[in-house]
Amino acid sequence: MENTIEQVVDIILKSMPSAPPGDTVDTFRAGDPWQKVTGILKSMPGTPREGTIDTFKVGDPSQKVTGIVTTWLASYEVIQRASELGANLIITHEPTYYNHFDNVDWLEDDPVYQAKRQLIDENNIVIWRFHDLWDRHGIVPGLIRELGWEDYADAEPNLYNIPSTSVKDLTISLKEKLGIRVEQVVGDLEMVCHCVAVSPGWAGARRQIRFLGQDSVDVLICGETNECVTCEYARDAIAAGKRKALIVLGHVYTEEPGMKWLVEWLRPHLPDVAITRVPTGYPFGAL
Amino acid sequence: MENTIEQVVDIILKSMPSAPPGDTVDTFRAGDPWQKVTGILKSMPGTPREGTIDTFKVGDPSQKVTGIVTTWLASYEVIQRASELGANLIITHEPTYYNHFDNVDWLEDDPVYQAKRQLIDENNIVIWRFHDLWDRHGIVPGLIRELGWEDYADAEPNLYNIPSTSVKDLTISLKEKLGIRVEQVVGDLEMVCHCVAVSPGWAGARRQIRFLGQDSVDVLICGETNECVTCEYARDAIAAGKRKALIVLGHVYTEEPGMKWLVEWLRPHLPDVAITRVPTGYPFGAL
Repeated sequence: MENTIEQVVDIILKSMPSAPPGDTVDTFRAGDPWQKVTGILKSMPGTPREGTIDTFKVGDPSQKVTGIVTTWLASYEVIQRASELGANLIITHEPTYYNHFDNVDWLEDDPVYQAKRQLIDENNIVIWRFHDLWDRHGIVPGLIRELGWEDYADAEPNLYNIPSTSVKDLTISLKEKLGIRVEQVVGDLEMVCHCVAVSPGWAGARRQIRFLGQDSVDVLICGETNECVTCEYARDAIAAGKRKALIVLGHVYTEEPGMKWLVEWLRPHLPDVAITRVPTGYPFGAL
Repeated sequence: MENTIEQVVDIILKSMPSAPPGDTVDTFRAGDPWQKVTGILKSMPGTPREGTIDTFKVGDPSQKVTGIVTTWLASYEVIQRASELGANLIITHEPTYYNHFDNVDWLEDDPVYQAKRQLIDENNIVIWRFHDLWDRHGIVPGLIRELGWEDYADAEPNLYNIPSTSVKDLTISLKEKLGIRVEQVVGDLEMVCHCVAVSPGWAGARRQIRFLGQDSVDVLICGETNECVTCEYARDAIAAGKRKALIVLGHVYTEEPGMKWLVEWLRPHLPDVAITRVPTGYPFGAL
């Protein structure tokens, strides 16, 4: 393919279902009270669109594409792997520079940032973030496919009516399907649950709490949260006599399936480009 | 003691070392890019001080104090326990209503919030938050006392030069001393470490990264972080050849010792009031 990287991203954006340029996308961010950000998509890909962080983060997108790597987060190791694969476009879901907006002013003198930039520059890598749009269209469907829950969807978005099971058995099943080592659960493991709210990644405490607070919802499954917020809501709910549970699975574990599905989704739109998924992997180890 | 709760809080604030009313306190909050908030302490306790969240959250502080409970977070169960103890003042480090600023507008119709408010109101409980000032004066010292690291303090704040040990043995020791079930570690468990940066709670990614990025620092110990930020910085640092490790212990585990120490610190200032520490406990269980 003789397309430039800019043209590739243009093809991707034009292939998005029901989100043409000009559409309004609501995204939810971590951190009250600045949780809800409205992103207005604007004209051309490649130019920063007001309110979205789906922009080029580094590199020259006018170069010809040599291959694409999709990943949850463009870590140092993912960039090394892209280079080994001969790919010069990394499509990342999460930030490259340790903050949601990929600000780098505070990192100019940081040796880790400098080493990462050097690796990127020496390999002519372009990093494009595909977060706000793919959160909406790809992350939940990718996770639901991985779980095999397609037939359980409720009329209400993000809710799934699974065959009744205990919180314990649900957690075991989720761990097996997603390859999770350490679970974090608030609630009674023997509680029978049926209606599950699914909120991958870190959607912000207010959104998570709105899911879990709904009368019909037994369990909220999320990627991550912080200790003072959603898990304390769950604990208070249970102490006040409500039948609720919270299962925290890890941000990366709940979003990797969406980035895996992105490869399948991209291939028909970009048939001549080599597209490889490189898992970021869970950052934490154990003793 | 015939003091009102307002008078009790006044005594506490006037007893703070080097932080008289009118002083400037820098605190760091979770969530880039709104990380650093400057709080200007103002005149009287009980009135909201601009930029600080150390305010009364609920209840009538003009009532006579009947007893004090100190806690990391005033959960439903902690409030029940305070009531059993006959205490009407809860001094909490963390928020009551699942967001840092204890905004409740979004919770008015929430059944869990309503149940918690009912419990508070029926028991005439007053909740006062002691976060920004105690973060500075009590949380780190309390943790260091619990670890027995008083003699290891570096000239640089938050740094401790411990006897050289492996990351694995350090983690085991921390888990034992703090009663931690699940550790989360980024890095080589066999790496020998000596200089440890200690950052309890969730100080924000920039602050954590500034600690870990210092040449002299081998390991950062923190309460919690989020998956896209500090742990990815640690992972990139290691991939780029730096000798670094990150140990995440849990927000509550790293701050409970500071709230335990608060009881000791308060007693000489309020000799006639019953003061009890009620641990909040870790929210998560395991299979």
